[in-house]
Amino acid sequence: MNKKRNIKCEISYDGTDFHGFQIQPGKRTIQGEIESALEIITKQSIPIIASGRTDAGVHARKQVCNFFTESRIPEEKWEIAINSLLPNDIVILSANEMPLEFHSRYDVQTKTYRYYIYNNKTVDIFRRNFTWHYPYFLDTEKMKKASKLFIGEHDFTSFSSAKSDIKNKIRRIYESDIWVDQNEIIFQISGNGFLYNMVRILMGTLLKIGSNKMEPEAIVNLFAENNRTVAGITVPARGLTLWDVKY
Amino acid sequence: MNKKRNIKCEISYDGTDFHGFQIQPGKRTIQGEIESALEIITKQSIPIIASGRTDAGVHARKQVCNFFTESRIPEEKWEIAINSLLPNDIVILSANEMPLEFHSRYDVQTKTYRYYIYNNKTVDIFRRNFTWHYPYFLDTEKMKKASKLFIGEHDFTSFSSAKSDIKNKIRRIYESDIWVDQNEIIFQISGNGFLYNMVRILMGTLLKIGSNKMEPEAIVNLFAENNRTVAGITVPARGLTLWDVKY
Repeated sequence: MNKKRNIKCEISYDGTDFHGFQIQPGKRTIQGEIESALEIITKQSIPIIASGRTDAGVHARKQVCNFFTESRIPEEKWEIAINSLLPNDIVILSANEMPLEFHSRYDVQTKTYRYYIYNNKTVDIFRRNFTWHYPYFLDTEKMKKASKLFIGEHDFTSFSSAKSDIKNKIRRIYESDIWVDQNEIIFQISGNGFLYNMVRILMGTLLKIGSNKMEPEAIVNLFAENNRTVAGITVPARGLTLWDVKY
Repeated sequence: MNKKRNIKCEISYDGTDFHGFQIQPGKRTIQGEIESALEIITKQSIPIIASGRTDAGVHARKQVCNFFTESRIPEEKWEIAINSLLPNDIVILSANEMPLEFHSRYDVQTKTYRYYIYNNKTVDIFRRNFTWHYPYFLDTEKMKKASKLFIGEHDFTSFSSAKSDIKNKIRRIYESDIWVDQNEIIFQISGNGFLYNMVRILMGTLLKIGSNKMEPEAIVNLFAENNRTVAGITVPARGLTLWDVKY
């Protein structure tokens, strides 16, 4: 019998035409496409483990997954082999053999997300799938000030989908910032983990502040309320990108 | 009878899913989509005049067209009216009434194109439709030096499709440059006009120079040869964007 090996892949995808990461029968998903490729290569059904799921329409600049196999394909061949079988909206950036203990989800140290708002009168055709077009005035200084209040350890109940059944809603945020690059407003946030819809609700809350419907300082009270209805809207998926995962 | 008016539009499009600019029966074209929108708005068949055609797969950050109409729709309403009827890969950036003499093609002073090469091992998923992925070494200093030799008035016979039946192949280039931004190599060229496939062949020739298959100084001889076969390949359409048109 061959030795069991653990292969870690860094992947990038354009989430526009996927029903999210997680495999679903009859639907086009990132997990589904990668597992199909692995099945063709190894002639075996191999489940992949990811750092976490991403929703329909959400992109990844760098997502990480791993899988176990007894295949003897050399380490340096996996990347080319898998890429040759993937559609053009997913790409494997690297594939490396890891110790058997490595786990893409349990071992995450830091995840970073970016949300892009295109804040201009007309849409940017070339970025339309990767930004949310919002043509109204936003006070980015206020948004930046508010974004800093997410840093630290907090209960994010007010900022996550009420549909989630996860009990522990405490997460630690290491970095949170807003900046402007030409007509794009970029929100970047890093933490030890994120709840369902959390980044999109945090962005929706910053939007409320940027539109002068709430003051930056109100963030403190929102944490205390533990109630989803007090925060801002869940902004559209297309503006969200999983930027980095660190171990 | 209503007064005849001349409306000038600045437009932007993602050329990926179009069979080029020019209308063709049964094919999805930029001209076809805009004329369909105008027909719905005005109840009349209105031909549009563009600064020039772009080929299948070529994009436009700023293309210009104009059309004549007797419609009494106010100047400031055209942009919203047309955009409301266009698919999400074309957008009208502005629409303004011009003197009746204005002609989008005849009055062009300068056209600017950009060609983007993504010069890295793996494809950039988010820029895949707007760059040409070329994973091999390129000497960008040599390419930059060669690009400067395009400036001035020259006969571009060697650098245009032999299929063209245009007689006068003399064009004046005002600016030509190559620079690197992260993993993208950007070729930008401005001139009083461009022949069929000209920018893609100029880029293909710079590629030959960057790959050390030709020296920058050879450009001078290529102009003298007046022969398409001595220049480089016609690089793929996807990397090309009509960047600007000035009047």
